[in-house]
Amino acid sequence: MDDIATTLALTETERVDRLRLIRSDNVGPRTFRSLVDHFGSARAALERLPDLARRGGASRSGRICSADEARAELAAGRRLGIDWLAPGEDGYPARLATLDDAPPLLAIRGNRATAMRPMIAIVGSRNASGAGLKFAGQLARELGEAGFVVISGLARGVDQAAHRTSIATGTLAVLAGGHDCIYPPEHEDLLATILHQSGTAISEMPLGHEPRARDFPRRNRLISGASLGVVVVEAAHRSGSLITARMAAEQGREVFAVPGSPLDPRAAGTNDLLKQGATLVTEVADIINAVAPILERPVVPPLRESDSEPFERDPQGHDRGHITSLLGPTPISIDDLVRMSGASPAIVRTILLELELAGKLERHGGGMVSLI
Amino acid sequence: MDDIATTLALTETERVDRLRLIRSDNVGPRTFRSLVDHFGSARAALERLPDLARRGGASRSGRICSADEARAELAAGRRLGIDWLAPGEDGYPARLATLDDAPPLLAIRGNRATAMRPMIAIVGSRNASGAGLKFAGQLARELGEAGFVVISGLARGVDQAAHRTSIATGTLAVLAGGHDCIYPPEHEDLLATILHQSGTAISEMPLGHEPRARDFPRRNRLISGASLGVVVVEAAHRSGSLITARMAAEQGREVFAVPGSPLDPRAAGTNDLLKQGATLVTEVADIINAVAPILERPVVPPLRESDSEPFERDPQGHDRGHITSLLGPTPISIDDLVRMSGASPAIVRTILLELELAGKLERHGGGMVSLI
Repeated sequence: MDDIATTLALTETERVDRLRLIRSDNVGPRTFRSLVDHFGSARAALERLPDLARRGGASRSGRICSADEARAELAAGRRLGIDWLAPGEDGYPARLATLDDAPPLLAIRGNRATAMRPMIAIVGSRNASGAGLKFAGQLARELGEAGFVVISGLARGVDQAAHRTSIATGTLAVLAGGHDCIYPPEHEDLLATILHQSGTAISEMPLGHEPRARDFPRRNRLISGASLGVVVVEAAHRSGSLITARMAAEQGREVFAVPGSPLDPRAAGTNDLLKQGATLVTEVADIINAVAPILERPVVPPLRESDSEPFERDPQGHDRGHITSLLGPTPISIDDLVRMSGASPAIVRTILLELELAGKLERHGGGMVSLI
Repeated sequence: MDDIATTLALTETERVDRLRLIRSDNVGPRTFRSLVDHFGSARAALERLPDLARRGGASRSGRICSADEARAELAAGRRLGIDWLAPGEDGYPARLATLDDAPPLLAIRGNRATAMRPMIAIVGSRNASGAGLKFAGQLARELGEAGFVVISGLARGVDQAAHRTSIATGTLAVLAGGHDCIYPPEHEDLLATILHQSGTAISEMPLGHEPRARDFPRRNRLISGASLGVVVVEAAHRSGSLITARMAAEQGREVFAVPGSPLDPRAAGTNDLLKQGATLVTEVADIINAVAPILERPVVPPLRESDSEPFERDPQGHDRGHITSLLGPTPISIDDLVRMSGASPAIVRTILLELELAGKLERHGGGMVSLI
């Protein structure tokens, strides 16, 4: 089964421009999308970046990635067998492409076809129990046999068990660092086996990027976003797997949890998920039955922002001052900003974009923003 | 906290009559209630029993318990400290009294006040794991500290652990046999300790009745019926605890289940209950929060059947023949019988009562009946 058919194919110039824009200072996936929607192309956005940042009050111009740097990164990646794909291109996971903050270019290594099949994520504790590891492996094997790709984070414990038992049927590893900075390092062999057996690895990070603590939650949104649903096998309170589950819920993905004894701290997180409404899993049919109706619906790409909410080319200075004065370190919703400022949504969005490019604005989930 | 205030008090003659009626052949709790609703009193029903059974086609008259037998049973029980109580009398659990098939006389031994307090049932495997026993004991202790009586079946395993840790705060044992036929026999000491420490035991069976396999499901309806909710701690597929949980759901009681590993067969039943919508329990607050709103509502006794659905004193012979011909060994609903026969509900109910007293009709849950 295939998740979706795609048609987009970038020219090499477009690919270089996209990589330059996403590697430039203060440009994340959401800003990237706003800029391209606003100016029509990555190239046009690159030309306007210095002016926008200046209008947002940047004291000095942010660094813009040069064409030479971008071409060097693409070439270095290709020597490792890496493709750089935009949402909509063949090999870019279809559901991942529907996220608001989908990576504008995804570095993909290994089998592209695997990345286009329906996926179920299996995540859980790094120090899972023997029973937890056994059950994770069993679910992964049976999901693979049912035609699903198993996606996970290449970590110790549950991730490793899930990847290992789904190698024969297709598995996808999502990296928190660059493709040449595997974490944990002892899983380089596991990754090599995955890639050798028609599996796939993806990363949104540059080559050479060593993963830091904050990169893991960011990576986790890709695991949940590319999947139909996330199965949490064992998880203590406040563990990383629960972040993946929360992101899955925010992204509209199914959340599954495996129950455990109340006396086992490794089941505390999964039992909490069940109390919050996650689907209880004791056998693979619990997962397959829940995702079957979703598989029958087409994967719908998101509206382009410009379709619904245009930007304003040249906001007035007094609007900029007023909106900036309404912002502070406490996150506030963009809707509230529009209401309180009396300015049009287009003006507010444009001023926020300028502030962001000046390195002064932080975006949070759910349309919330704050000053840095 | 007290569950309800009661006012009813039978005369000794009424108590003897009720015991005679429920100890007579082919009279169960539901038939008892129909008869008393129909004829106005147990005494009046006793007088009409032979005639009704004959009209239902009994080949020989069923045995009717004599006044001497009933008085002897009451006297023997009282020597053991047993009271015989009707629904509505002080000491008869208030929620138990609301069941359609509440025992017309309940043999109660020990502390009456304990039987009038709000109860939570804890049930589960006889061969529970160490963790299951520990958790059952922990829940029972904390429910007791929160003011609830813990009700269970005095069995090995989870029942025993639940009773034992709630002895100090009040526990109630529901027996499948008579008060002098404790099962398992080695729990006579546990029962003695319960009764010594202001606990209570109840049974609807005559003294001298050794419990048989079919008595346990019948007993289980009293455990669930007397409680606000039933907590199942560990239960394999198709275990007795699941019958108690099903009865609790049918009676409108809360169903709670403790999760466990999918690889542990002793958690298969509880995990199934959770999939069916039982409330997940990892701590006592999960139970207390769920029953708090129920505690605030008054306990409402059921409508008397005669208030809503009258009987017909003398149905015609052709109605009897027609309705009997519609019945067979496969259960059918009384509503369907009324529709298919064209007779009035009063006539159908009366003819079914006659058939029942003739030993020809079996009643199932949900208003279903079949020929024996």
